Amino acid sequence: MIGGGKGAFIGAVHRIVAAMDGQIELVAGAFSSDPEKSWASGAELFLDPARVYSSYQEMIATEKNLGPDKKIDIVCIVTPNHVHYEPAALALTNGFHVVLEKPATFTLEEAKKLDELVKETGLQLLLCHTYTGYPMVKEARQLVKSGALGAIRKVYVEYPQGWLSTFLEGTDNKQASWRTDPGQSGKAGAMGDIGTHAFNLAEYVSGLEVTQICADTRTVVPGRLLDDDGAALLRFHNGASGVLMATQIAAGAENNVRIRVFGEKGGLEWQQEDANSLVLHWPDKPKEILRTGGPGLSEFASRNTRTPAGHPEGYLEAFANLYRNFACTIRARAQGEEVHETCLDFPGTRDGIRGMAFIDHIINSGQSDQKWIDFKA
Amino acid sequence: MIGGGKGAFIGAVHRIVAAMDGQIELVAGAFSSDPEKSWASGAELFLDPARVYSSYQEMIATEKNLGPDKKIDIVCIVTPNHVHYEPAALALTNGFHVVLEKPATFTLEEAKKLDELVKETGLQLLLCHTYTGYPMVKEARQLVKSGALGAIRKVYVEYPQGWLSTFLEGTDNKQASWRTDPGQSGKAGAMGDIGTHAFNLAEYVSGLEVTQICADTRTVVPGRLLDDDGAALLRFHNGASGVLMATQIAAGAENNVRIRVFGEKGGLEWQQEDANSLVLHWPDKPKEILRTGGPGLSEFASRNTRTPAGHPEGYLEAFANLYRNFACTIRARAQGEEVHETCLDFPGTRDGIRGMAFIDHIINSGQSDQKWIDFKA
Amino acid sequence: MIGGGKGAFIGAVHRIVAAMDGQIELVAGAFSSDPEKSWASGAELFLDPARVYSSYQEMIATEKNLGPDKKIDIVCIVTPNHVHYEPAALALTNGFHVVLEKPATFTLEEAKKLDELVKETGLQLLLCHTYTGYPMVKEARQLVKSGALGAIRKVYVEYPQGWLSTFLEGTDNKQASWRTDPGQSGKAGAMGDIGTHAFNLAEYVSGLEVTQICADTRTVVPGRLLDDDGAALLRFHNGASGVLMATQIAAGAENNVRIRVFGEKGGLEWQQEDANSLVLHWPDKPKEILRTGGPGLSEFASRNTRTPAGHPEGYLEAFANLYRNFACTIRARAQGEEVHETCLDFPGTRDGIRGMAFIDHIINSGQSDQKWIDFKA
Amino acid sequence: MIGGGKGAFIGAVHRIVAAMDGQIELVAGAFSSDPEKSWASGAELFLDPARVYSSYQEMIATEKNLGPDKKIDIVCIVTPNHVHYEPAALALTNGFHVVLEKPATFTLEEAKKLDELVKETGLQLLLCHTYTGYPMVKEARQLVKSGALGAIRKVYVEYPQGWLSTFLEGTDNKQASWRTDPGQSGKAGAMGDIGTHAFNLAEYVSGLEVTQICADTRTVVPGRLLDDDGAALLRFHNGASGVLMATQIAAGAENNVRIRVFGEKGGLEWQQEDANSLVLHWPDKPKEILRTGGPGLSEFASRNTRTPAGHPEGYLEAFANLYRNFACTIRARAQGEEVHETCLDFPGTRDGIRGMAFIDHIINSGQSDQKWIDFKA
Repeated sequence: MIGGGKGAFIGAVHRIVAAMDGQIELVAGAFSSDPEKSWASGAELFLDPARVYSSYQEMIATEKNLGPDKKIDIVCIVTPNHVHYEPAALALTNGFHVVLEKPATFTLEEAKKLDELVKETGLQLLLCHTYTGYPMVKEARQLVKSGALGAIRKVYVEYPQGWLSTFLEGTDNKQASWRTDPGQSGKAGAMGDIGTHAFNLAEYVSGLEVTQICADTRTVVPGRLLDDDGAALLRFHNGASGVLMATQIAAGAENNVRIRVFGEKGGLEWQQEDANSLVLHWPDKPKEILRTGGPGLSEFASRNTRTPAGHPEGYLEAFANLYRNFACTIRARAQGEEVHETCLDFPGTRDGIRGMAFIDHIINSGQSDQKWIDFKA
Repeated sequence: MIGGGKGAFIGAVHRIVAAMDGQIELVAGAFSSDPEKSWASGAELFLDPARVYSSYQEMIATEKNLGPDKKIDIVCIVTPNHVHYEPAALALTNGFHVVLEKPATFTLEEAKKLDELVKETGLQLLLCHTYTGYPMVKEARQLVKSGALGAIRKVYVEYPQGWLSTFLEGTDNKQASWRTDPGQSGKAGAMGDIGTHAFNLAEYVSGLEVTQICADTRTVVPGRLLDDDGAALLRFHNGASGVLMATQIAAGAENNVRIRVFGEKGGLEWQQEDANSLVLHWPDKPKEILRTGGPGLSEFASRNTRTPAGHPEGYLEAFANLYRNFACTIRARAQGEEVHETCLDFPGTRDGIRGMAFIDHIINSGQSDQKWIDFKA
Repeated sequence: MIGGGKGAFIGAVHRIVAAMDGQIELVAGAFSSDPEKSWASGAELFLDPARVYSSYQEMIATEKNLGPDKKIDIVCIVTPNHVHYEPAALALTNGFHVVLEKPATFTLEEAKKLDELVKETGLQLLLCHTYTGYPMVKEARQLVKSGALGAIRKVYVEYPQGWLSTFLEGTDNKQASWRTDPGQSGKAGAMGDIGTHAFNLAEYVSGLEVTQICADTRTVVPGRLLDDDGAALLRFHNGASGVLMATQIAAGAENNVRIRVFGEKGGLEWQQEDANSLVLHWPDKPKEILRTGGPGLSEFASRNTRTPAGHPEGYLEAFANLYRNFACTIRARAQGEEVHETCLDFPGTRDGIRGMAFIDHIINSGQSDQKWIDFKA
Repeated sequence: MIGGGKGAFIGAVHRIVAAMDGQIELVAGAFSSDPEKSWASGAELFLDPARVYSSYQEMIATEKNLGPDKKIDIVCIVTPNHVHYEPAALALTNGFHVVLEKPATFTLEEAKKLDELVKETGLQLLLCHTYTGYPMVKEARQLVKSGALGAIRKVYVEYPQGWLSTFLEGTDNKQASWRTDPGQSGKAGAMGDIGTHAFNLAEYVSGLEVTQICADTRTVVPGRLLDDDGAALLRFHNGASGVLMATQIAAGAENNVRIRVFGEKGGLEWQQEDANSLVLHWPDKPKEILRTGGPGLSEFASRNTRTPAGHPEGYLEAFANLYRNFACTIRARAQGEEVHETCLDFPGTRDGIRGMAFIDHIINSGQSDQKWIDFKA
C-alpha cells in the first residue's frame, strides 16, 4: 500500500475491503512520504517492520527482488491525485498489478499513458469506482444490456454532497485541503472527486457513451480555488440525452448518489441510500423491486453478494466486490484458467481515461460560451 | 364552468375541489362547444337546465344580467390552452372572477393582457398551479423565507412523467391529442404542460427569480409535433443556480414532481409521492421531517390542512386549497374585511406571465446555439 | 346531519366527503343538542334556516313530511357513541337511509337491533370504517380473494396513535373528553375508537373471521377511565393466526394504521402513510408495488380512484368512496337497477355487529385469566 | 474456528467480519466433524495445514501447548446448537476466549454453566446477537438510557422471515435441516433461531427485562417438527408491555427485524431494511432521523462506524462491531488497560441465559392454557 497512513481516510477503507474476502493480505507498505509516519502506521497494522518502507520507490525496488512466494502481487495507491501516475507506472513496469483510487491521474495524458502501460505489461489495474461494485448497480447494467428497457432515451445521474458547504479547507481538515488544492487535486474539485463517479455510473449502467456536454460549473464557497458545484446536460452516442448533477455544497446532504435510466419500455432507479433495491418502473405492469440476495437476479448480482436477502450489504461490500473480482481475475490468469465474466466486471484504465476526459470537458464547458462541447477521449 | 364536459379530465377535478370546502357551488356551465354535449353534461351534474348554456359567450351574457344573489361569481375555464384568453377576458370585463387552468394562455402577450385586465377590474384570477397548494410546499416556501436555510444556493426541480412515451396521440386519447397539437397547446408540449409546473414550483418555494436559462429540449417520440422532454440549467437573480428536468417519456414514471432547495445552512426536499412530508437536511443536527398536521408548522401549512397528522391529504386537497384561498379572498374583499395573509397565497396572473415567459425562453433556448439566454418576463 | 356542530371534528369531514362526488347535498341538520349552536352551525353552512333543527327528533319528524323531491334521503349521525342507536333507529323507522360513525353503537345488543331494523326496512346503512375505502385496501382484499397469496396463514394489523399519551381529557379537548368517558364512549376507549378499525381492516382484507382472542388491554395514563392501549393474539376460522395492536399512548405516533397478510404463496402489506401503494412480497419473484391509478388493478380499485397514478389520493378520498358507493347503491336500487358489485362494497351493520363484539371480547379477554376466549357475534 | 466448513453459511460470515478490522486473524480450525472436509476447508482458506485439525478436541489440546505468541487466543464456535456447550466449555477451561453463535446452548442449564465458567476463568465470551452491533441500535439503547423518551411504556419487536414457508427441510437444504431438527436445534425452531434475536433486541434497546409472557406458538408447515411461527404478549419489570412477533412462514419476507419503543415523551423506531436510520417520533416537534455517521450521535454509535454518513454500513459491519469490541476488550485487559465503555458493549453469557430462558418460556407458554407465565432466568 502506498499512502493511507495515520489520519488518512480511504486507506483504511482499502485495508478493510481488501481483507474482506480472504483473498488479499496486506504485507507491506509505504504509508507516508514521512518515513516516521510510515513506520508508525505499519506497526499499528501489525506488519513486519522489515516490509514497512520509507518511500514507495524503496518498496517497489525491494519487493520486486523478494521471492515469488513472498513478494507482493499488488500495489495499492491511495495517495492524492498528483501522486497517482508515478507510483502506478513504477509498479506496472516492475511487474506489479495496481489498485488505484479515482480519478485515475492528474491529467488526461497520464491516464492514457497508464492505459498503454497496462496493455504492454499485461498486468491488471483496478480503478476504484466503488459504486459499480454494488450488486444492484451491476444488475441495473445487465438489465439495460438485456434490452428489457428497450432503447435508452434518458439518463439522470446525481451526486449531492454537503460536506464542503463551508470553507472547510480553512480548518485542519486534511480531506478538504488536498481535494480543494489545484496542486494536488488537478484542474477539478467536485467534478473530479464526485462528478467522475456520477459520470462513470451513468456510462456503466446505461452502456452508453457521452458524446456532447453542456455544463455549468461553479465555485460557490468564497475563497475556494476549485469548483464545488456543477451540472451538465449530456448527449449520448445513441441519441439519448441526460443530466448530470454533482455538488459538494448541498448543505446537509450525505452521499446519496443516484441514477435513473429510462428506455422505450420502462425505467430503472438506484440510489445509495437504498443500495440493496433496484426499482423498475413499467408502463403496463406493477412497479418491481429487485433486492440484493432476492429472487430474479443475474449472476452478476448474485456472485457479488455475501449475505441472504434482507441483511443489508453496504459500501464496504460494494468496494470489496471490486477487489474480489480483481483478485479473481489475477488468480485465474496466473493459473491459466478462464476468467469468469462476472470477475472481469471491474473498472480499469478505460474508465480512467473516460473519467479524466470528463474532468477536462466539464471544466472546459463550464468556462466556455459555446453551448455544446464534443466529448472526445 | 367553461369546458369540462363529458370525457374531459381536469373539469371533473375542478368540480370536486371547488365543492370540497362548501364555499363554492357549481350552478351554471357551458361545458362544450357542442351545445348538445353541454346540455347532457349539465344534466349529469343535476344543474338547472336554464343555466346550462350552448356557449361561454351566452353564459356570460346571460348570467351578468341575473340578480346579484343569483348570478355566478366566478367563471372557471378548463378548456385547452388556445381557448383561455378569450373567455377569461370576457369574464373579467363582465365582472366575474376567473379560475384558469395553466398554462395561463396561448401566448405570452395574452398573459400580459390578462394581467392588465385583472389590475383594471380589481377582480381576482386564480391560476391553477396545484402543487403550490400542498401544505408542505407552502411550509417549504415559508421556511426559505424565514432564512432558516440561509441564502439559497441551489435549486433542483423535476417532473418526470411516462404517459407520453408512446405515440398516444395516434390513438383516440383526447388528453394526449390536444396537448401535442401546436394549434391547441401552443409552442410547447411537455414544457408547457409540466415544465411550467416545475418552473412555478421552483420560483414559489425558493422565492427566487430565474434570470438565465440554458436548455436542451427534445421531441423523442417519432411523429410527435411538440417537445416531450427537456432539461435546463438555471441561474437565479441572487446568484444561485439550478436544474430543471421535465419529461413525458420516462416510461413507467407517474407524476412524482419533486423539489430540492439548498442554502448555506441546510436544505429541504419535497416530492408528490410523499406529499405530506417535508424533509429538512442539516449539517449539524439530525434530519427532520415536518408532516402535514404535525407539530412545528406555520399557519400557512396549518390553515391549508383538513385532517389530523397521519391521515394523508392528497392532490385534490392541495387543489382545493387554491380554491379555498381564492374564495376566502373574494369573500373577505366583498365584505370589506382584511384578507388573511394565508388566503392571499394563491397563484395568479403574475405566475401566468412568468409561466408563459418560461415556455418562450426554454423553447427558444432549446433551439438556440447560444449557451445562456437571458430570462425576461 | 345529526351532530357535527361547531368545534366537532368528524362532522366537518363528513360534509367534505359527502359533497366530494356531487352525489349528495347537505340540506338539513340538527347539529347540536343545544339549539342555538345548531342554528349557528347551519348558518355557517349556508343552509336554509327552516331546515336547521333544534333536535334530531324534530328533524326526522319534519323532514319525513316534506315532499319526496325535497325531503332528505339520508341521515348522517356523527355524535358520540351513546347517541348512535336512538337516532339511527328513528331514522330507519321513518324511512331514511343512515350513515353512522363507528363504533356502530354503545352496546352489542344495539348493533344487533340496528341490523334487524335494516333488514326489516330494506334501507341502507353505511358504517364508516374509512380505511376500507382506500383503493389499495380494496385491491388487497380482492387479491386475497383471488387466491393469489394462497391460503392465508398470518395477519398482522396495527393502529398506533400517540395523541392520548398525556391526560388530555384533563384539558378542554372535546375529542379526548368524550372518547375517554365510559358514559359516552362505552366499555372501551382505544379498543373502541381504533381497535375496531384495526379489527375491521383485518377481517375485510383477509376475508377471514376471528374465532378466538387472547388480549392484554391496559390503561397506561394515570387517571384515565378507559383502556388506552392493547394488543391481542388472534385465531381465525381457517386456522390462521394473527396479532392486533392498537394504542393511543405511542407518543409521537400519528395514524399509521397498517396491515400485513401472508399466505402460502406470498404476502401483502399496506399502510396509511403510503396509502397509494400495495406492496406484494413473493418468494420466487421480485417484490411488486401496486399503485392507485397504476397498471394491473381490479375494478374495485379503479372505480374508487379519481386521479391519475402519482397524484396521491388520501383519507378524504377513501372516506368519500364509502359515501359514493353507498349513494350509488341507493340510487341504483331507487331506480330499480342492478347495483354494480363495486358499489356494494361498503361497511354496514354486519361490520357493526362484528365491531361491537370485538369491543366486548377484547375488553373481556383483557380482564380475564382465561387464555383464549371464543369470539362469537 | 470450530465448524464453518464448506457449505456452511454462518462460518463464512464469521471469517469476513473477524478479519474486517485487522484485529483478528484466522490461523487454525476444526471446520468439520469429518476430517477430510476440515482439511479441504482449511486449504481453501490458505491456512497452515499443521493447524487444520480433525476435531475441536484435537485443536484445543494442540493449540494450548503452542507458544503464547503463536497459539490462538480465541475459539469461534459456529456449529449447530447441540454442539455449542461442549466445545465452549472445553475452550474456556483451556484458557481460550470464546465466540459463540446464538442461541447460546442446547438447554438453559448449559447456558448457566457456561456463565459460571466465564466468571471462574475471567475469560471473555461473545454471543453473536448481531443486530445489537448496528450503530443505530446502539444509539437507540443510549437514547432510552438517557431518558430522552421518558419512562418506557411500550415495546414492539418483530422478526418476519419467509424462507421456511415451504417444507424446505425435505430438500437437501442444510440450513433448513438442522434448524428444524429437535436433535440439533433444541426445543425451539423459529423461536430459537430468530425469536431469540427479537427478544434480545427488545431487552437491549429498552433496557427492560421481561417478567411475564403469554404466547401463541405454532407449527404451520405440515410435517415440520418444531415451531415455525409465534407471537407473544410481553410484560416488563417496570410495568411496560410489549408484543414480540417472529415467524419463518411469512412467504416473501426477507429479514426485516424491527423494533419500536415508546416512552412518555416520545418514541423510536429501527428496522434492518433501513439500518442506518433511527427514527424518532415526538409529540411536540418534528420527526427526527439520526443517521449512521451523521450529526448528533453518541460515542456508542460513532465508535462503531467506519464510513462517512450516507455510505451505508450493513449486516457485516454490525457483526464486525461485535468482534471489534470483543477484541478491544480482550486486548485492553491483556495489556492491563481500562476498557472503553463502548468496547464492553457486546453480548455475552448473560444474554445467553436470557435467550435460553426465552426459548423455554415461550415454548412452555405456547403449549399452556395458563394465560400469563412468569419469566425467570
